[in-house]
Amino acid sequence: MKVSVTRLEHFNAAHRLYRPEWSDEKNTLVFGKCSNPNFHGHNYNLEVKLTGVPDPETGYVFDLKLLSELIDKHVLEVLDHKNLNLDVSHFQSLIPTAEHIAIVIWKMLRPHIDDQLELKIKLYETERNCVEYPAD
Amino acid sequence: MKVSVTRLEHFNAAHRLYRPEWSDEKNTLVFGKCSNPNFHGHNYNLEVKLTGVPDPETGYVFDLKLLSELIDKHVLEVLDHKNLNLDVSHFQSLIPTAEHIAIVIWKMLRPHIDDQLELKIKLYETERNCVEYPAD
Amino acid sequence: MKVSVTRLEHFNAAHRLYRPEWSDEKNTLVFGKCSNPNFHGHNYNLEVKLTGVPDPETGYVFDLKLLSELIDKHVLEVLDHKNLNLDVSHFQSLIPTAEHIAIVIWKMLRPHIDDQLELKIKLYETERNCVEYPAD
Amino acid sequence: MKVSVTRLEHFNAAHRLYRPEWSDEKNTLVFGKCSNPNFHGHNYNLEVKLTGVPDPETGYVFDLKLLSELIDKHVLEVLDHKNLNLDVSHFQSLIPTAEHIAIVIWKMLRPHIDDQLELKIKLYETERNCVEYPAD
Amino acid sequence: MKVSVTRLEHFNAAHRLYRPEWSDEKNTLVFGKCSNPNFHGHNYNLEVKLTGVPDPETGYVFDLKLLSELIDKHVLEVLDHKNLNLDVSHFQSLIPTAEHIAIVIWKMLRPHIDDQLELKIKLYETERNCVEYPAD
Amino acid sequence: MKVSVTRLEHFNAAHRLYRPEWSDEKNTLVFGKCSNPNFHGHNYNLEVKLTGVPDPETGYVFDLKLLSELIDKHVLEVLDHKNLNLDVSHFQSLIPTAEHIAIVIWKMLRPHIDDQLELKIKLYETERNCVEYPAD
Repeated sequence: MKVSVTRLEHFNAAHRLYRPEWSDEKNTLVFGKCSNPNFHGHNYNLEVKLTGVPDPETGYVFDLKLLSELIDKHVLEVLDHKNLNLDVSHFQSLIPTAEHIAIVIWKMLRPHIDDQLELKIKLYETERNCVEYPAD
Repeated sequence: MKVSVTRLEHFNAAHRLYRPEWSDEKNTLVFGKCSNPNFHGHNYNLEVKLTGVPDPETGYVFDLKLLSELIDKHVLEVLDHKNLNLDVSHFQSLIPTAEHIAIVIWKMLRPHIDDQLELKIKLYETERNCVEYPAD
Repeated sequence: MKVSVTRLEHFNAAHRLYRPEWSDEKNTLVFGKCSNPNFHGHNYNLEVKLTGVPDPETGYVFDLKLLSELIDKHVLEVLDHKNLNLDVSHFQSLIPTAEHIAIVIWKMLRPHIDDQLELKIKLYETERNCVEYPAD
Repeated sequence: MKVSVTRLEHFNAAHRLYRPEWSDEKNTLVFGKCSNPNFHGHNYNLEVKLTGVPDPETGYVFDLKLLSELIDKHVLEVLDHKNLNLDVSHFQSLIPTAEHIAIVIWKMLRPHIDDQLELKIKLYETERNCVEYPAD
Repeated sequence: MKVSVTRLEHFNAAHRLYRPEWSDEKNTLVFGKCSNPNFHGHNYNLEVKLTGVPDPETGYVFDLKLLSELIDKHVLEVLDHKNLNLDVSHFQSLIPTAEHIAIVIWKMLRPHIDDQLELKIKLYETERNCVEYPAD
Repeated sequence: MKVSVTRLEHFNAAHRLYRPEWSDEKNTLVFGKCSNPNFHGHNYNLEVKLTGVPDPETGYVFDLKLLSELIDKHVLEVLDHKNLNLDVSHFQSLIPTAEHIAIVIWKMLRPHIDDQLELKIKLYETERNCVEYPAD
């Protein structure tokens, strides 16, 4: 039967929520303080979950040390200590809400994980706000 | 594809577990120290999860600031700093176990959330005990 | 040189903050929702810290399993799953603020701890509010 | 509708990951520092989740105090403060990865829980690594 | 005898560590990824501790609800969802390291707290990095 | 005025508490399950605190990235994924209680930290047990 394994990682980033085609008033109305033109930031807590059958030889669904290295190379190198709006190409035409960041991280990791393993992302933007993709 | 978003809130309350038609002995046998006639209490941690498709304009499944305000108005105003048995009408004929509190909170919020969004409640009564409704 | 050792324990209780000689209006003005006549409650997290020189034979300042048993016998038996105002004699003429609860716990434990060890209490009433006695 | 209830418990244990039929080199290549012949150890956080319909009389899916006692008797008595490789019969021919420990705990508890209740295990080996069995 | 009371609050902000009179190379050498010209950000956890004698009438050293309001008005209004370098006057000629942010917060609150109470600030920049001012 | 800065790190290890000159009975009487001859283990959370005056140029008391590297080199390389009794020379004639481990870590780091900075160690053996050296 299937087992899930999860690795927790962290990154820090600045961002701003706004749509360039909207007025400043509408951006403030919709996004509130999150649309501050000079950016604000977060410590993001990232949980990456893989689901599959444990390897009969190693007892691992996936080596979590290797998963940590894949997250570091394909996600943290791109997002950590960055301005999501200015430094990260994925968000040049996509608002960096937590929902969108989780989808982008899923797309960054999917090509590097065996197709037989299901991949899920859980992202905490603060201790009180989090998102999951894909939803259960 | 669908994304889940979750908001964490807190409330404090007193409660007592007992059935009035049972003897004190049977209440103590079934509910132990939780049936103390003078009540005891908890800090409840409440997670409210909504699942749906992100809005293509805002990138939000649901504005978590708005969700926080809905929880404050429809749940915390009724339960926070209250005696669940004496002050809250929902528990006049319903034992305020964590299971029942989670179901009551779900019913308090469901009318105020768009039907296209799935709603789930997770409630921590202590750091070591929690319930989820509806179950996955 | 001296080492401190700390044990964390939990208890749940109901309480109410009010002075009987004050009017309801004044109690509400001073204590707000905490003066609800029907009580509210908390999960209290209790940290008990002892400071002294490690025993040269055992390497222990104090056996934390024994400290846990002392806390259980002298503190949790009295406070856990209780109404502090109605069930606990120490608060019959003392308002059960977190400050006073910490001082009461210190007095409960002090006679059972060797005089050569310093004793400090840290009490979390919620995840966001805590008190320490005696202060550093 | 169904509700899930979860109880969190802890245990501490030593273990080592290795296959006796492999060379030391291959064990180090696959399991890294986790194959240290003299063992290392962890504080394991264990979440046991039961899903079912609340009892109409008690409002409980399952009494979490009773669940805590079942976990203590059937799991913690066997695993706590033990060397998983040397002291626990289940791991005499099974590598004690977190995946395998979660499956073993599920098998320890399943006979003692009513068949109408679904049972799930979540096990944190560290704050950053966890496994779930069976997967959602 | 004296008691300490502590209130925990949160804020989110963007910042950058650099000295304008240094070259980009020297800023990168000293501050690493924290000198990214486009900023990065954090969720800051702020603990404000006051030490004094409990009021004999209320049992409070200081009303923590009032302390929360003072922090909101004098600290969070200025720092939350802001770019510390660009939006906050205190950091126009002061590098916004965690050390300096803690000192600035202490100066923001000190005039609003009774002189007989000692004031201490603890600031978590991440879950793994924190500062305290003044030091014990 | 002085500021404290703290870095949190983790390590995992196996250990056993016993005195070789004592009988098995006395070891079990004093150390209980912690004297299991086959060892048990923990995830240790380590907080290293330095206190001093912030550098006027950098705003740092000490670069926490550098402190993390020093802890990794001088502490984690020696203790992580090890059997403290068998693999670590410091504990060949010293019982690896949390008190003694904290003192050993202080001695490992002291030569590598500027004398003008005060050094303190806080070590969590479990979520409920911790020690501090030197005591406040």
